[in-house]
Amino acid sequence: MQWSNKLTELLNISYPIVQAPMLSVSTPAMVAAISNKGGLGSLPVGGLSKEKTTALIRQTKALTTKLFAVNLFAHHVEPVDASSILAMQDFLEGLCKANNIDYKMPSPEAFQFASYKDQVEVLLAEDVPVVSFTFGILDDDVIKQLKERKIILIGTATCVKEALLLKQKGIDIIVAQGIEAGGHRGGFLANEPLPMIGLLTLISQMVNKVTTPILAAGGINDGKTIKAALLCGAKGVQVGSAFIASDESDAIPPYKMAVQQATETDTVLTRSLSGKWARGIRNKLMTEIETASIEVPAFPVQGALTGPIRLAAQQKRDKEFMALWAGQNCSTAEMKPAGEIFDGLINEAELVG
Amino acid sequence: MQWSNKLTELLNISYPIVQAPMLSVSTPAMVAAISNKGGLGSLPVGGLSKEKTTALIRQTKALTTKLFAVNLFAHHVEPVDASSILAMQDFLEGLCKANNIDYKMPSPEAFQFASYKDQVEVLLAEDVPVVSFTFGILDDDVIKQLKERKIILIGTATCVKEALLLKQKGIDIIVAQGIEAGGHRGGFLANEPLPMIGLLTLISQMVNKVTTPILAAGGINDGKTIKAALLCGAKGVQVGSAFIASDESDAIPPYKMAVQQATETDTVLTRSLSGKWARGIRNKLMTEIETASIEVPAFPVQGALTGPIRLAAQQKRDKEFMALWAGQNCSTAEMKPAGEIFDGLINEAELVG
Repeated sequence: MQWSNKLTELLNISYPIVQAPMLSVSTPAMVAAISNKGGLGSLPVGGLSKEKTTALIRQTKALTTKLFAVNLFAHHVEPVDASSILAMQDFLEGLCKANNIDYKMPSPEAFQFASYKDQVEVLLAEDVPVVSFTFGILDDDVIKQLKERKIILIGTATCVKEALLLKQKGIDIIVAQGIEAGGHRGGFLANEPLPMIGLLTLISQMVNKVTTPILAAGGINDGKTIKAALLCGAKGVQVGSAFIASDESDAIPPYKMAVQQATETDTVLTRSLSGKWARGIRNKLMTEIETASIEVPAFPVQGALTGPIRLAAQQKRDKEFMALWAGQNCSTAEMKPAGEIFDGLINEAELVG
Repeated sequence: MQWSNKLTELLNISYPIVQAPMLSVSTPAMVAAISNKGGLGSLPVGGLSKEKTTALIRQTKALTTKLFAVNLFAHHVEPVDASSILAMQDFLEGLCKANNIDYKMPSPEAFQFASYKDQVEVLLAEDVPVVSFTFGILDDDVIKQLKERKIILIGTATCVKEALLLKQKGIDIIVAQGIEAGGHRGGFLANEPLPMIGLLTLISQMVNKVTTPILAAGGINDGKTIKAALLCGAKGVQVGSAFIASDESDAIPPYKMAVQQATETDTVLTRSLSGKWARGIRNKLMTEIETASIEVPAFPVQGALTGPIRLAAQQKRDKEFMALWAGQNCSTAEMKPAGEIFDGLINEAELVG
């Protein structure tokens, strides 16, 4: 059976399955593997330089002729107040000393955050056909520019209000991110309190109020959860954690193993690692920062502060001091090629007949 | 089509739909309406006296010959430290004065909490065929006593670990309570951090590890969500919010209207009203207590302290100072007979052919 709906037609894909953009996990090889199978791969480039963005897009293009999405962080960059970071920096230095991690103080350039607007030039130059984004809404001039080039736009919403705003701006597809999802919360209207809506309810409420096709994200890990999301009105699903342990993933082996062993209560929401709420498997770095009683600087400042620690830990293969982003339903992640994982999903969901 | 699975056979019901026990909302008439339609009504008696428990069971029996469940609070009663409640009591008195609510200091008897064990005698005397419980696990001697009488036992779990404990104790059916659910969290292993598992993930993880039949609860409000839960492996569903606005509900009209108007982000988890985490629509009483910076006494002490306020507000039809328990997907609640709402659910879910 050839699967087809508004979403697959818009994206010109065979199956309504999108691989979630996971920064520091998703690679060009993973993105290409999914697109080559008839799904939509998503290349994460949020916060990266123009040069790095270009290189990653070209690496992906070398591995697939199919279309894939490029994912931006659509937040506005605020100037950094240097005094607000001193206490956290001191704390992190002490923490690293105590744990035998070589903490290299981030250079001042680490706090010169690029705007996604610089990357838009690259996306246009590289003729990217699908742009997805999170943490906000692209500015009107950018939306206009991308739409003039017939680029398909995918936004992210964690509640119905956000979905309505995305619809108003003419965004083509909306990712409904349930509270189960791993990694950063993609919402932008409110952080306190954070919308914490279960995926089924989020889809159910969103499809009643927004006509834009919905991609369900959060806890989608097998044929049953895919069928359930489609049954409730989603036009497709976005799958992240199921690909973390794949052969094409950049996750180090201890991270992959932690994902496979995580129970549904082992992941928690935290602001400790980046300054923005995100879901990951609890580890020492998270707990130490959370219990330090020091104000956590906002995203992406805290991310720049913890960056050198996470990098050093990754190089030492120490999962306790890096980010172990993962969703509540991550434990079924398999260590095999991403394309085989994708095949398993479409077979289980009976998307082929 | 006659619906049948392990759960409906155990309970001897025609449809795998259980009406959730909602204290101060569910009435004998509501319970009987659902049981008369071939579902399972649940009569909430948690924390009530033996006399009140007997009366409610008899009222329900007068309205149906079908079987229904009686729901207990299975927590252990701790002695109350009088000094720990003074600050909260002072605060609540001031709050009531400022808001023109007649606060009658709870009598010392209000803090003499009965144990569910006293109610077990009543349940046996009344030949109750199904006992459901929440906030813990019934003690071994009680389980033995009830099982000897062939009473079907239904426990509540908010994570897989709790479900495994319930299974170990020989509980027949487990309610998997997703984070979407309205009212009190039924978990008992950990409150900090509270397991906050989306329903789809909770079912998905639970059915892989526990063979006991699962009832899915939280955000189940229509045919699609029922189908999705069954598809993911639940053997039935428990529906609460959809019955709050029913004709048989004890909810006052402003509460019913608030439920119909609530968006998915309007309900929040709070300890402010009872001392135990519960989901309800945010109102003044919740916000005032949460922002008062006074330690909230544990359940059920805080419930006894706020009880007179909630009662007075209910009598004045003031929804701002009572408990508006409701789930994230509550807005589709309809003002009509509970039996008609039930018919709608089974038709939408195509449980009749």
